[in-house]
Amino acid sequence: MTVTRRALLAGGAVAGVGAAAAAGLAAAGSGRSEGSAPAPVPVSFTDIGTGRVAFHGPRQAGVTTEPPAHAAFLSFTLAKGTDRQALGRLMRLLTDDAARLTQGEPALGDTEAELALHPARLTVTFGFGPGLYRAAGLASPVTDLPPFAIDRLEDRWSGGDLLLQICADDALTVTHAQRMLIKDARPFGAVRWVQRGFRRSAGVHAAGFTQRNVLGQLDGTANPRDAAMDTAVWNPDGSTTLVVRRIRAEIETWDLLSVTDKENAVGRRMTSGAPLSGRDEFDEPDFAQLDDTGLPVMPDFSHVTRARMSDPRLKILRRPYNYDEAPDAQGRPDSGLVFASYQADIDRQFLPIQRRLAEKDLLNEWTTPIGSAVFAVPPGCSAGGWIGERLLA
Amino acid sequence: MTVTRRALLAGGAVAGVGAAAAAGLAAAGSGRSEGSAPAPVPVSFTDIGTGRVAFHGPRQAGVTTEPPAHAAFLSFTLAKGTDRQALGRLMRLLTDDAARLTQGEPALGDTEAELALHPARLTVTFGFGPGLYRAAGLASPVTDLPPFAIDRLEDRWSGGDLLLQICADDALTVTHAQRMLIKDARPFGAVRWVQRGFRRSAGVHAAGFTQRNVLGQLDGTANPRDAAMDTAVWNPDGSTTLVVRRIRAEIETWDLLSVTDKENAVGRRMTSGAPLSGRDEFDEPDFAQLDDTGLPVMPDFSHVTRARMSDPRLKILRRPYNYDEAPDAQGRPDSGLVFASYQADIDRQFLPIQRRLAEKDLLNEWTTPIGSAVFAVPPGCSAGGWIGERLLA
Repeated sequence: MTVTRRALLAGGAVAGVGAAAAAGLAAAGSGRSEGSAPAPVPVSFTDIGTGRVAFHGPRQAGVTTEPPAHAAFLSFTLAKGTDRQALGRLMRLLTDDAARLTQGEPALGDTEAELALHPARLTVTFGFGPGLYRAAGLASPVTDLPPFAIDRLEDRWSGGDLLLQICADDALTVTHAQRMLIKDARPFGAVRWVQRGFRRSAGVHAAGFTQRNVLGQLDGTANPRDAAMDTAVWNPDGSTTLVVRRIRAEIETWDLLSVTDKENAVGRRMTSGAPLSGRDEFDEPDFAQLDDTGLPVMPDFSHVTRARMSDPRLKILRRPYNYDEAPDAQGRPDSGLVFASYQADIDRQFLPIQRRLAEKDLLNEWTTPIGSAVFAVPPGCSAGGWIGERLLA
Repeated sequence: MTVTRRALLAGGAVAGVGAAAAAGLAAAGSGRSEGSAPAPVPVSFTDIGTGRVAFHGPRQAGVTTEPPAHAAFLSFTLAKGTDRQALGRLMRLLTDDAARLTQGEPALGDTEAELALHPARLTVTFGFGPGLYRAAGLASPVTDLPPFAIDRLEDRWSGGDLLLQICADDALTVTHAQRMLIKDARPFGAVRWVQRGFRRSAGVHAAGFTQRNVLGQLDGTANPRDAAMDTAVWNPDGSTTLVVRRIRAEIETWDLLSVTDKENAVGRRMTSGAPLSGRDEFDEPDFAQLDDTGLPVMPDFSHVTRARMSDPRLKILRRPYNYDEAPDAQGRPDSGLVFASYQADIDRQFLPIQRRLAEKDLLNEWTTPIGSAVFAVPPGCSAGGWIGERLLA
């Protein structure tokens, strides 16, 4: 094992991975579908453990890949003195681990090989924070978000030099991949934060179905779809950017609202997700429509009205997960969203939406951002290559 | 809603539940199968959200029911002055919530009705701690476990007057049920602790498959099966008992062991789960078998050797879930088992095994009990009745 690992560090060749044929769900779950909206994928009983998403390609998996049920977001603070050469070694190691684990193979240093055998659509996606570029002596393509009046950010959920987004349809698969990746990463830095989250389990909804969050809202209806996904999410070189915000749900007060009040805050029906001006979830909201009293049917303070981006090229891809930590002694929940959004350009796409929401969005009453971090997501790599090679080699 | 709830508290009639036909997986997932080992149940794509386990019956569901992927164990400390009458009101409320939610119907006071529609084999199982019996002026059938030398118990994971075990194949379903049940329980007491756990997702393994825990071990091979389940788990009146122990896995040091060392500690092969004296997982261990050097093939300090209970009536039903909380800054995991075992009688079944393990079990080196609680699990109830009615009415 040591020899193989040394060879890997020296030469960058990813032994044994080039031949790994992408089987099972791979063709449907990534690669071909990365550039378009996720198409419904038939899932049968045994597919849930064996589903594989191809790791190699010009774009990283785990971005436009249909989100599986479980996620861990890991943020690291690099150790002092971790320079470009060290980062190259780190990313060779982590790329090799990810390439193997996502295909249902143990990592080279795997101490529990049996736990690696059910990939369950595992993806590992790497993001580089501003501090990583500083450490490498490079200009960062991303900068921390400006402060917003609604923010109540806590250090323990914010920032980071390196991000790993680990997603799979099985929580034990996520746990094992997390463990193996941390073991290889920790000589290079400290774990800054870990956020675990969940969506509906595989087999509850068809792929592409808009899911509900812990506030009961359908979340993600306005995501870019089909051809628009390509320009909204990806840069021509295969890179993108990721914003991770921890958004606490103020469920105790949200629960006091009537359904009508909730619908006015969101701008959509709670049952169908349809805009208040329409009938079906994917109807375009009509902001000019007036009700019998002459007021806009879509309230101008509603979340949909404020967040709406009619130019599909300026949309962001929301890929949120729910979190639910232990309640306090009084039974008040600690619950909310690990909000993750991918977009080609944070300044052009994310910031205008976020500024409008921070300024006036009735939903701000029941949601509180308590964590925030930004990352550049470098292009994917081919077999034999590694994530970040164009920057760090 | 208020009227219906008042009627419920006054009369004890569970409105609207009697007519709820147990559909989908109900017949296979509970009721008939409660008294025997779980039979493999075919699961198809859409069943994962729609699967229902019958709530009503002479025995509570969630005990011999095949464990679904996600669990929350909730322990409450009763408020001072919560007497038998108050406990009766509490259990009427919680029983009604559980009867509805497990069948995919919103609770009476449900604030997010849409989140109730995917039961995903949801079960809610109630346990009464020694303090509940004291509060009701009754003799408790269970007492706290004696201390063991291996224990490093923490108050924050130990004890409790009332336990709710909430299990489902979907984490959002568990979150929603937990939220609704806590809302109805909290006027009567404080949340003492909540432990969330997970097993393999539905669709990764066939039902009845022995799963691996975070240490990579197949966990539950020695569970009672078939006819033995009935006498090992259930008392004639439909009651049983539950021990919940939080067992931290010392993964950092476990990882340093060779596969052979791990197998000697457990007494089973890591790959197949077969006893070291046999070839297949369910082979009976042969403690008399000697190796070429004249030593027992099953080491006398191995976990299997110490835990073995050859009389099937004295076995315990292990129903463990994995936990994996955030690692520390150095990347050391906070991971282990929410060990839950059901047995007809703690003194006769659980304690002898636990005493032998505490005295000599090589696995103690890599596992640390940090929480402990015991509960009597009262019989189930029929439609119109409520859990605990024979004690508290």
